[in-house]
Amino acid sequence: MELLKERIRKDGVIKEGNVLKVDNFLNHQMDVELFNEIGKEFKRRFADVKVDRILTIEASGIGIAAITAQYFHVPVVFAKKSQSINLDGTMLSAQIESFTHKRRYEVIVASRFLNPGENVLIIDDFLANGCAALGLCEIVEAAHANVAGIGIVIEKGFQHGGKLLRDKGLRVESLAIVDGMDAATQTVQFRE
Amino acid sequence: MELLKERIRKDGVIKEGNVLKVDNFLNHQMDVELFNEIGKEFKRRFADVKVDRILTIEASGIGIAAITAQYFHVPVVFAKKSQSINLDGTMLSAQIESFTHKRRYEVIVASRFLNPGENVLIIDDFLANGCAALGLCEIVEAAHANVAGIGIVIEKGFQHGGKLLRDKGLRVESLAIVDGMDAATQTVQFRE
Repeated sequence: MELLKERIRKDGVIKEGNVLKVDNFLNHQMDVELFNEIGKEFKRRFADVKVDRILTIEASGIGIAAITAQYFHVPVVFAKKSQSINLDGTMLSAQIESFTHKRRYEVIVASRFLNPGENVLIIDDFLANGCAALGLCEIVEAAHANVAGIGIVIEKGFQHGGKLLRDKGLRVESLAIVDGMDAATQTVQFRE
Repeated sequence: MELLKERIRKDGVIKEGNVLKVDNFLNHQMDVELFNEIGKEFKRRFADVKVDRILTIEASGIGIAAITAQYFHVPVVFAKKSQSINLDGTMLSAQIESFTHKRRYEVIVASRFLNPGENVLIIDDFLANGCAALGLCEIVEAAHANVAGIGIVIEKGFQHGGKLLRDKGLRVESLAIVDGMDAATQTVQFRE
């Protein structure tokens, strides 16, 4: 998605340790006009797929998933990272290791929001080691629902998450795949 | 907002301890069509106010704020609840006590996403004791920006947050104000 790549080139900041900061348009400040273009592009790429529901994970996936849902006309569910007194009933959970936060945590979805046989599109902002996406897939499988596909805004192509998911036969659509980046020159190489 | 009140009556679940669960349309599963009606209503109520930016707080505020921003044509920033390796530069922070989670935590906004003199509309899903909204106001003030108003989806009118904010001269627009609720009969009294 050319518009997204241009934006990453213009506003992305590369830090040592393979960190790509896109917090001024994607995951702290949100450019909702860009999100609408992202939503349209996900709809275009998954046009041939039946989608009954979008599943994402708090916090940075939520805005993208909500805007994207407008093009699919389906409800969104976001997996929660902490148990709240407002959660009850049967819960589906998975363990996730965060690349950004360098820790493991549990994500939870109330089982009544994922119905057996449904086709679930997973949406997230980043794909790096694939743990978040794999955790969401586990939750979908535990609900006896199907993963219709995985839509990612930015994939770090030099980490193994994308290969891991595609090797499992999952359909992954990443709007920008970064194959390399250099903090010294602040340059990003995208996969063609 | 009648549509919202109807939805709370239909799908809200009241639990002991003044907990109103609206997780099947507002803060776990998200009904994005309803969010669009909420966004339009916020725009109608704040039509006379200059808004340069929307500020919300992760996680449940994000979806509502992103959809609402489409009617204001401004960027959204969400305050983060945890320090990540992706946060750097000057940070503005406030301490917040959560009614739902029964604990204190710090929320953080990168100062470069709130400019001096800007008019900031604060959006959140719930207003109870007012701590989240007050924390966001503190952050806006620390940035030398102005609170243009506070837009709340559901205010618990029997808790003191709404009075606290209005007594400070802040403009609070709550789309539904719950004055009482009864777990035994599953009934909600709305303020007229």
